[in-house]
Amino acid sequence: MSDRTASYEGVLDAARQIAPAAVRTPLIESPALNARVGGRVLLKAETLQVSGAFKFRGAYNRISRLSAAERASGVVAYSSGNHAQGVAAAARMMGARALIVMPSDSPAIKIEGVKALGGEVRLYDRWTESREEIGAEVARERGSVLVPPFDDPYVIEGQGTTALELLDQADGPIDQLICCCSGGGLMAGINLVLEARSPQTKSWAVEPEAYDDTARSLAAGERTGHPAGPPSICDALQTPMPGVLTFPINRRILSGALSISDNEAAGAVAYAFRVLKLVVEPGGAAALAAVLADKIETRDRTTAVILSGGNIDPGLFAEIIEGRFEAAPRQGAAA
Amino acid sequence: MSDRTASYEGVLDAARQIAPAAVRTPLIESPALNARVGGRVLLKAETLQVSGAFKFRGAYNRISRLSAAERASGVVAYSSGNHAQGVAAAARMMGARALIVMPSDSPAIKIEGVKALGGEVRLYDRWTESREEIGAEVARERGSVLVPPFDDPYVIEGQGTTALELLDQADGPIDQLICCCSGGGLMAGINLVLEARSPQTKSWAVEPEAYDDTARSLAAGERTGHPAGPPSICDALQTPMPGVLTFPINRRILSGALSISDNEAAGAVAYAFRVLKLVVEPGGAAALAAVLADKIETRDRTTAVILSGGNIDPGLFAEIIEGRFEAAPRQGAAA
Repeated sequence: MSDRTASYEGVLDAARQIAPAAVRTPLIESPALNARVGGRVLLKAETLQVSGAFKFRGAYNRISRLSAAERASGVVAYSSGNHAQGVAAAARMMGARALIVMPSDSPAIKIEGVKALGGEVRLYDRWTESREEIGAEVARERGSVLVPPFDDPYVIEGQGTTALELLDQADGPIDQLICCCSGGGLMAGINLVLEARSPQTKSWAVEPEAYDDTARSLAAGERTGHPAGPPSICDALQTPMPGVLTFPINRRILSGALSISDNEAAGAVAYAFRVLKLVVEPGGAAALAAVLADKIETRDRTTAVILSGGNIDPGLFAEIIEGRFEAAPRQGAAA
Repeated sequence: MSDRTASYEGVLDAARQIAPAAVRTPLIESPALNARVGGRVLLKAETLQVSGAFKFRGAYNRISRLSAAERASGVVAYSSGNHAQGVAAAARMMGARALIVMPSDSPAIKIEGVKALGGEVRLYDRWTESREEIGAEVARERGSVLVPPFDDPYVIEGQGTTALELLDQADGPIDQLICCCSGGGLMAGINLVLEARSPQTKSWAVEPEAYDDTARSLAAGERTGHPAGPPSICDALQTPMPGVLTFPINRRILSGALSISDNEAAGAVAYAFRVLKLVVEPGGAAALAAVLADKIETRDRTTAVILSGGNIDPGLFAEIIEGRFEAAPRQGAAA
């Protein structure tokens, strides 16, 4: 973690840094979705980013700034999967080894994705081990640089490039922007851009209902965790607490936080398949779920929605699109 | 069918006509796909078009030119599903009733899609009845205007707008363009644009191997059918013979025709799910299948690929992405 504060200027610099490697993802509008909500919805499809999620932006922005000596010692990261793949992809482009510490219950497609990108995987138990400690230990042992999933200025600024593109691609003002929020890196990067470029746009964070630490933290005025709960279908959004660097930014700029159930997330995944023709993972569909489940007023407004990732196991995707998915505490749930 | 010849100028006019209603679909590039083929692949995602396929372009271009009296008598169309939905969507926007004659073995998602768009559905047996006769009969009975799936200048010109957008969106020259081909309306519209705007781009048609009437017709120098065969997983590409208006255009401009198996189409659908994060139906993935199955040289070239539609039943999609699909003659297959 760096002491430097993430800034809008840093996001502009990140945009130049990642331009040769990242995908400028399309901003998609669906007349069917507009008709359903009675307003305009602009979908930023980060599902189409390198490695299937926005995470590549921050990972590349961080790793591409390492010195030759640092690259030679490799990088290490802990992640439920999307950051893992982003780091593995960026490290490979930079010729650096990557070791990724992943929960043993990560979706198989994400673990395989890291390996396919040349990353080394170390699994850990999400319920009994601390990924931060394991990551720090490996970093010490190997002399590798730790690439944090959100609490790093370069990572936050890399994620913020999503909003730079979005504002450039939109053909008019945006009333509100809705984005999933876990550690808050994407949300914070986006918020820095909105504050500087589109302060009239209200921004909202979306969390799984059992992982509502951002809502609790906003209410408390300080970083606060959530009670231990069962795993969520939104595997990418299960961080215990907002970040040290991300929360002050999000607290300053967010209009508030919304929460969605696993069934609402699954409903959004199914809608994206059936109507939008996009593959979105449950956590990546959280913001869309908030819109479809009427968690926020969209009528006669222009609403930007971030589709943050599309890495979902075929088995779960099949369950959801065939209507066989039922949200329930799953095997391995902690108390 | 009109005697007027479809033209590049007609495509330009169609672009103005459909602009208020159609989606300008994104041109998508995937670094993972580029790495796999050793060249650049630009994917035109007509899966994201209104009603999930390019067909809306031609249908809207035709129906929006009807007189008030013609609109009052409604429209009729025959289609395996994507044209059906395009016509239903365009007719609803114009306030016209739409009756669609569809094969009884059409994917349920396409039949339901037509009904959801307010269309009336009449099912027929693909193997014993003539859709052309049924369509003409209904048109006579009701005084409705028949909107042909491909043999109409306005329809061909509407589909051609796909290529206008593609050339505007691409950041450099395109060496070759690959597109699925059934009746040949999309292929012909695209070819008119390439001929006028990018004559150095070679264009290739792709057909299911048992429905290779365009390849046979190119070889024979005249419109030729294919032997009766089993149904293909590419339900959208099962036309018996190239069109009267489309074939002369395609014969003049095409570099040739490629064919793919049902397993290759299914492989492309699975790849689009896993890597591209796009929902593509088998027929819509035919051009991608030709690239992935090395039916054409892509190394060190820029290849445009049309993803023509994304309307696939959840059950079949689940089978394919879970690796349970096996191509075989299916129930209801004719001799």
